[in-house]
Amino acid sequence: MRRLLLSLSLLAFAGVQSPTYADVDTGLNADSIEQARLLRDSAMAGSEAYDIVESLTTEVGPRLAGTEAEARARDWAVEKMKSLGFENVRVEPFEMETWVRGEEHAELLAPFPQPLSITALGGSVATAADGLEGELAIFESLDALREAPEGSLKGKIAYIGNAMQQTQTGASYGYYGAARREGAVVAAQKGASGLLIRSIGTDSHRFPHTGKMTYKEGVAKIPAAALSNPDADQIERIAQYGKTLRVRFTQTPKIVGTTQSGNVIGEIVGRERPDEVVIIGGHLDSWDLGTGAVDDGAGVAIAAAAAKKLLDAGLRPRRTVRVIFWGAEEVGLLGGFAYLERHRADLEKHVLGTESDFGAGRAWQLNAQVSEPGQAVVDSIARLVAPIGISPGNMDSPGAGPDLIPMVQAGMPSLRFTQNGMDYFDLHHTHDDTLDKIEAEALDQNVAAFAVFAWLVAESTVNFWR
Amino acid sequence: MRRLLLSLSLLAFAGVQSPTYADVDTGLNADSIEQARLLRDSAMAGSEAYDIVESLTTEVGPRLAGTEAEARARDWAVEKMKSLGFENVRVEPFEMETWVRGEEHAELLAPFPQPLSITALGGSVATAADGLEGELAIFESLDALREAPEGSLKGKIAYIGNAMQQTQTGASYGYYGAARREGAVVAAQKGASGLLIRSIGTDSHRFPHTGKMTYKEGVAKIPAAALSNPDADQIERIAQYGKTLRVRFTQTPKIVGTTQSGNVIGEIVGRERPDEVVIIGGHLDSWDLGTGAVDDGAGVAIAAAAAKKLLDAGLRPRRTVRVIFWGAEEVGLLGGFAYLERHRADLEKHVLGTESDFGAGRAWQLNAQVSEPGQAVVDSIARLVAPIGISPGNMDSPGAGPDLIPMVQAGMPSLRFTQNGMDYFDLHHTHDDTLDKIEAEALDQNVAAFAVFAWLVAESTVNFWR
Repeated sequence: MRRLLLSLSLLAFAGVQSPTYADVDTGLNADSIEQARLLRDSAMAGSEAYDIVESLTTEVGPRLAGTEAEARARDWAVEKMKSLGFENVRVEPFEMETWVRGEEHAELLAPFPQPLSITALGGSVATAADGLEGELAIFESLDALREAPEGSLKGKIAYIGNAMQQTQTGASYGYYGAARREGAVVAAQKGASGLLIRSIGTDSHRFPHTGKMTYKEGVAKIPAAALSNPDADQIERIAQYGKTLRVRFTQTPKIVGTTQSGNVIGEIVGRERPDEVVIIGGHLDSWDLGTGAVDDGAGVAIAAAAAKKLLDAGLRPRRTVRVIFWGAEEVGLLGGFAYLERHRADLEKHVLGTESDFGAGRAWQLNAQVSEPGQAVVDSIARLVAPIGISPGNMDSPGAGPDLIPMVQAGMPSLRFTQNGMDYFDLHHTHDDTLDKIEAEALDQNVAAFAVFAWLVAESTVNFWR
Repeated sequence: MRRLLLSLSLLAFAGVQSPTYADVDTGLNADSIEQARLLRDSAMAGSEAYDIVESLTTEVGPRLAGTEAEARARDWAVEKMKSLGFENVRVEPFEMETWVRGEEHAELLAPFPQPLSITALGGSVATAADGLEGELAIFESLDALREAPEGSLKGKIAYIGNAMQQTQTGASYGYYGAARREGAVVAAQKGASGLLIRSIGTDSHRFPHTGKMTYKEGVAKIPAAALSNPDADQIERIAQYGKTLRVRFTQTPKIVGTTQSGNVIGEIVGRERPDEVVIIGGHLDSWDLGTGAVDDGAGVAIAAAAAKKLLDAGLRPRRTVRVIFWGAEEVGLLGGFAYLERHRADLEKHVLGTESDFGAGRAWQLNAQVSEPGQAVVDSIARLVAPIGISPGNMDSPGAGPDLIPMVQAGMPSLRFTQNGMDYFDLHHTHDDTLDKIEAEALDQNVAAFAVFAWLVAESTVNFWR
C-alpha cells in the first residue's frame, strides 16, 4: 500500500513535470527559459521590493479605502510607477461609499470592572455617544449563536468567542471570519443590541483586529466590534465564574458619503501583442489601524519590483505586463469589480493574472487553473521556482488573489503563489501591521517568482483560457 | 593566564560551596535541609502561583497606585491571604498624591501625515485640550539632548530615540530609562515645549510603554509621552528624508489629589522568635495599561505561593515569615518607604528579605550580601536551588528587589533570585502585560526558590546583618 501511494505520488509529480515547451508550441524557447532563470536569480540576489514597501508605509502610512489617505497613496503610486519606468501609468477611478472609524473604547462594568481593548469592525454603525451597555450573552461560535432562540438576546450584547489557530495557508480564515462578516446580522435576528467578537486573529497581543462586516436588508443594524485575544480570554475566564458580565462599549464610526477610489495601473507594453495582458498586482488600500505593511504593501512591492526586474533586464515580452495596484480591496474587492466592469468587453484579452495579498512570507506552493497548452507554461514556471522553495500544488484550483476574483468568476484562468501565512493573522488588520514585520529576503523570493511568471506568461503565445 | 583564571574561578566556586551548616551554628540541621528539599520539590511539582496571578489579573485587572482599582486589589489581597491561611492579615495604609491617565493620541502632521501610537509617561502633565503642536528636534540619546545649546529647542518638541536591546538581567534599563525619568527636565531646560521618547522597551509591537518620569523644582513642567518602537522607527526613518517633522500630541492626565495606598501583609508567625521577620513579597500595584501580570502579579503570586508551601507542609519556622504585597511601587517605591517609616524602630528585627519583581521568567542566579554566618545559610540555599537551574552569583552584591531598597539602604542585608528577563521589557508597562504571557512552570520554579529561602532563613538562628 505504501509502495502504491509512492508510485501514485511519483506519477502525480511526473504529471506536473511532463509537458514542456518542447512538447507544446508555447512560443517559449531555451533562451526565454534562460532569461527567466536570470530574472529569478537576480531577484533572489536583491530587488527593490523592500524599498517600495518602506516608501509606501512611511510616506503614506495607513490608507483606508475611499479616504484622502488612499488618494495620497494613489498619488504616491503614480509617481512610483513612473519613477520605476512603467508605461501608460494611470488611475482608473471609481466611486464608493466610504466608512471611517471614530473614537472607540470599552469597559467591563461587572463583575470585575476593567477596561477592554476593542476596535470597530469595518462598516459597523456607531453606538450612542455615551455607549451601548448591556449584559453579555456568551457564545462559543457563530453556529451556537445561530441556535439561540429568536428574541432571546433582547437587550443583550452577543459575544462570539471562536478562536482561530495559525495555519500556513490561512485555511481557517474563511470559517472563523464568518463571525466577523455575518455575526451582527445573526445577533440582531436574535434581538441583540450589539455584537462583540474575539478578533479573527492568531496572536496573543492586546491588538483587536478590524475587518469588513456586513448588514442585511430588513435586519436591524447593531454596532459590532472585536476584542483583542487577551481581552477575549479575560471575558471567557470571567464567564467561568458563573457571574453575569456587563459591558459598555462606545464607538463612533460613520459613513462619510460617496468618495473616489481607484486602481493605479502601469505597464510594460508588449512588443508583439500589446492588447494581450498579463496582470500582476497587490492592493493599495489598507485598514486604518496599522500602516498596511504586510496587508498589502508587501503585495504592491512584490508586483512592482518583479516588473522592474524585466525593465532592468531590458526585456519587453510579446504581451503586455500590466501592474495593478488595486483600490478598495478591504471593503469588498471594489477595485476588482470596477476593473471588470470597465474591461468586460476585452475580458478575454486578459491572458492570465496573479496577485500577492497574503503578507510578506515566502511563497511555498504554486497553484493554477489554465488550459492544457497553458499548463505547459505553468510547468516551466514550476520548474524554475522549485529551486527557490516553491513546489507544484493543485493544478486544477481556481484563484489568483482577491482582486482577480471577479474576473476569475467570469472565466479568466488563474495562477497563484501560495505564501507562508503562519504569522499573517497575527498582524493582519491590526495596529501592529508595520514595516518592521517584513524581511527583505522573503519579499525578494516572491519577486523572483512573480518575475518568472510575468516574463514567461507574457513572452508565451498560448491561450490560457479553457 | 587561562589556567590562572580557571583556578581562580574554581576557587571562587569552592568559596561559595565551602561553609556549610556543619561549620557554622546556623540553627539548621539535616532535617531542616531535607525539609527545604521537600518544599522545593513540591513547588516544582506544582504550586498555587498561577492561580493567584490569574485571580488577581482577572478579578482586579489594572491597579494603578492610589486609585480605586488599587484599593480593590487590597481587598482582593486581604481576602486571598486569609483564604491561603496566613495570620495577622492587615493593611498598612499610607497616603500619596495620585496621578491618572486621560485621553491620549498623536499624529504626524508633516511631511507624511499619519497617526502615531503614544502613551503619557507616568506623572506627566497634560497638553492643552487641543494638543501640543511643534517641530520635532531629533536626538539619538539623552546625552545628545544634554549637549544641545540652552534655549535651542524653543517652541519645539524634543524627541529622544535611544533604543534599548534585550538583556537577560535587564542591565540596560537603568541607562536607557534615564531618557524617560529625566528627559522632560533636560528638554525643558533647553526650551522644549514637550518631549516624545522611544519607549523604554525591547519589543517590536505597536505598544508604547509608560513608566514614571519626574520634574525638577524650578524647571518648566512639559508634557512627556512615549512612542511605540514601530512608531519611533517611523519617526527616525522619516527624519532621514531630511524634511522637518511636525507632530501634534494630546494627552489629558491629571493629579486627582491625595488618596490612600497601602501595603498588604500576612504572616506565618514564628514559633520561637516571632518578632524576627523574614520578608518575601511582590508589589500589588501595576501600571494602568495592562493587567499587571508580569509586573508584578507574578511576584505577588510567587511570594504567596511560597509561603503557602510552608503552610501546606505544616511548617512553622522559628522566625516569622512576613508576606508583603507592596503598594504604589511603580510611582516611586512609596510602599517601601512607608514601610521603613513605620518600622524604623524595629528595623534590625528584619532578618533578611527578598522580592520578586522582574517578571515571570525562571530564576537563574542567586545574589546576596549578608554576614559571614548568614552566608552559611545562603550557601545552603544555593546548594538546594542549583539543581533547579539557579547558580551562585555575586555574594557581595546588595539588592533584594525595589521595595526593599529603602531598608537595604538603611543597612538591611539582602538576597535576590535573578530571573531571566530576556522578554520582560517586551511587556513591562504596556497594554500587553496580560496573563497569557505567563507560564505556570516558570512561576513554580521561582516558588521553589522562595520557599527554600523563606524556610531556611526563618528556621535559622544566625544574624544576617553585617
